[in-house]
Amino acid sequence: MSSASFDFAPLLPAGLPPPAARWSGRVKHDFTGGNNDADRLPLEGLIAAADAVLRREGRTLSTYGLNSGPQGYRALREFLVAKLRSDAGIACTADDILITSGSLQALDLVNGTLLARGDTVVIEEDCYQGSINRLTRLGVTPVGIPLDRDGMRIEVLSTALDDLKRKGIRPKYIYTIPTVQNPTGTILPVERRQEMLRLSAAHGVPIFEDDCYADLIWSGERPPALYAMSKRGGVIHIGSFSKSIAPALRVGYIVAPWDVMSRTLALKTDGGSGALEQMVLAEYCARHFSTHVPALRRGLRAKLETLMESLKEHFGAAAQFDDPKGGIFLWVKLPDGVDTMKLYEPALAAGVAINPGPQWSVNKDHGRSRLRLCFASPSHEEIQGGVAALAEVCRREFGVPA
Amino acid sequence: MSSASFDFAPLLPAGLPPPAARWSGRVKHDFTGGNNDADRLPLEGLIAAADAVLRREGRTLSTYGLNSGPQGYRALREFLVAKLRSDAGIACTADDILITSGSLQALDLVNGTLLARGDTVVIEEDCYQGSINRLTRLGVTPVGIPLDRDGMRIEVLSTALDDLKRKGIRPKYIYTIPTVQNPTGTILPVERRQEMLRLSAAHGVPIFEDDCYADLIWSGERPPALYAMSKRGGVIHIGSFSKSIAPALRVGYIVAPWDVMSRTLALKTDGGSGALEQMVLAEYCARHFSTHVPALRRGLRAKLETLMESLKEHFGAAAQFDDPKGGIFLWVKLPDGVDTMKLYEPALAAGVAINPGPQWSVNKDHGRSRLRLCFASPSHEEIQGGVAALAEVCRREFGVPA
Repeated sequence: MSSASFDFAPLLPAGLPPPAARWSGRVKHDFTGGNNDADRLPLEGLIAAADAVLRREGRTLSTYGLNSGPQGYRALREFLVAKLRSDAGIACTADDILITSGSLQALDLVNGTLLARGDTVVIEEDCYQGSINRLTRLGVTPVGIPLDRDGMRIEVLSTALDDLKRKGIRPKYIYTIPTVQNPTGTILPVERRQEMLRLSAAHGVPIFEDDCYADLIWSGERPPALYAMSKRGGVIHIGSFSKSIAPALRVGYIVAPWDVMSRTLALKTDGGSGALEQMVLAEYCARHFSTHVPALRRGLRAKLETLMESLKEHFGAAAQFDDPKGGIFLWVKLPDGVDTMKLYEPALAAGVAINPGPQWSVNKDHGRSRLRLCFASPSHEEIQGGVAALAEVCRREFGVPA
Repeated sequence: MSSASFDFAPLLPAGLPPPAARWSGRVKHDFTGGNNDADRLPLEGLIAAADAVLRREGRTLSTYGLNSGPQGYRALREFLVAKLRSDAGIACTADDILITSGSLQALDLVNGTLLARGDTVVIEEDCYQGSINRLTRLGVTPVGIPLDRDGMRIEVLSTALDDLKRKGIRPKYIYTIPTVQNPTGTILPVERRQEMLRLSAAHGVPIFEDDCYADLIWSGERPPALYAMSKRGGVIHIGSFSKSIAPALRVGYIVAPWDVMSRTLALKTDGGSGALEQMVLAEYCARHFSTHVPALRRGLRAKLETLMESLKEHFGAAAQFDDPKGGIFLWVKLPDGVDTMKLYEPALAAGVAINPGPQWSVNKDHGRSRLRLCFASPSHEEIQGGVAALAEVCRREFGVPA
């Protein structure tokens, strides 16, 4: 027997993603990822909630699914019923909600329910990287619909659905982040929502509504969810507590009619999502969600203003962006000569992490000179220092800003 | 536009599992699932741990992965390094460990790293339902190896590997629960472990070692893990806190060499496993794991004795079983005329939930008159009442016990 180490390579199936690199620690100026503002984390409230709910119901941790069954902790679903009604206009019951391990598991479960290799979906052209990557891994073709300042361009959606129909292709869903779109920060107006629902019904293509950032609108007022506006039930709605409370608590949810929910639930073979996180969130949110979120929004808005001012100061007219209507990210256009995929490495070497545009768009050319900057986690000083450092690298690499 | 509700049915891909049924609440006498003893849950310790760790490090919840990167909370991995060394003889570092959302996610991730549709794996003939079901869903063929009172029969494993080789089939792994096997409760002796490792190396087939129940050995002493005994690194090891602390806390782990770990980690696209549960477990376990587990074992052993006595009282010689060496379940053989798949429904109607043998075996005939009874969750009185009720149903349906 050889003493050489066991060789796993011949056993790996085709199509695996490249191996992960070893983690090398956090970056000094990190403008990536959905990390949140540590100063706005409601830590005292979460500590009190953990103590209260564990003293009252902690014994139920000895049972998979607590005493709530496979759809998740009942009290959290009851909180969501009330929240979704008051915020998003959704009329549902706790039986229509499935608690998931973050909205990423919600994406996986909905994809597992509807998609097979070779399928086609319609998606916003600039879109969440995690959603795009999932489609790529599944061998599903995304048809990108461009956005303007009011989100997805519905006349292009209409043409795209007609084109697909002519080719005999029925897309499996229209994926949209209509309320604080990632990465553009746009909000789809009510009229466009109505038109999207009309197209969805006419083509028999359901809408997959990702509402992860909808709590973070500066004005505090949002249009009703597509799920709420649908008269025919052809919408699957997902959301998360990652942006409103804390991303490391992995709690999201799916709202769907039972004919879909029963298929999705059959795919959730994970023994339930983390119960302690659900319990603490339910206990905290039932009392404090409605006061916590406005305070969080104010803090985020202030950081966004620091970011926009820093970009003006260090990039001048070279950095173009719209003031987003909410959220934790800014979608920035640099001059055409800048390739943000090539900006990424030298920026990282200078201690600045960015999301290059091509990773956040199904149209790589369109994304080429764009980048996403997340502003919730770094401090005001880190934002200022990071933008200054990024401008220096960009000038050195691309002569921009001049 | 029709007012009929949206029809998702034409959009569902082939091969979905059947829809889930609506949850109808817990059963009176529940002998299924890995639920634990609520009286032995270390609730005060967990409450104190939650308070301490949140006060000290709670701010890190605002960042995905805390400050520990994608492999999970560093302090929990450090606890595991020490625990795996002292209990299982495993020499590893925190970099060799990936924290998962329960060992079920560990199963999914390892399967995702190694398996493709059409593959073959070798597995204990009587085996954990969740592992069997995963293989079925993936379109992977399990080759079952029978067990005796010392676990997997190595001479049959040797023959099976030779047979497969002759057919040109290289199995992707040998899956085993060597230390308190599910459902048989057996422990694979050191000599068989050595022989299994020799066969693994000779055939180039890695071992997938599932050690989920290994903490619950009555004697408190276990053989070294296969991972520890391997000289060549061809073992992937998984474990869980579900059985030792609480199943609703969804925390498991994978130990693997980096050439596998880097591929597995690339498949873990969930934004990290629940951080609060990891933090609370690390804080609690570092101080109390070594005193908590022996107390838990004593309580479980007492319940097992109640179960075995109840079976003797109500079934007499009709119920055959070996006294398991640890764990939370008993694997019972009834007379050949009993079909436990057909016993399931009438038992449930009488308020008794059982695991029918065919669901816990890749050999349906072998499993036909067997059943698994989990004894950790029901009280002593519920165990006695449940066995009495089960005997009554079994007598009515099958004339057994006479």
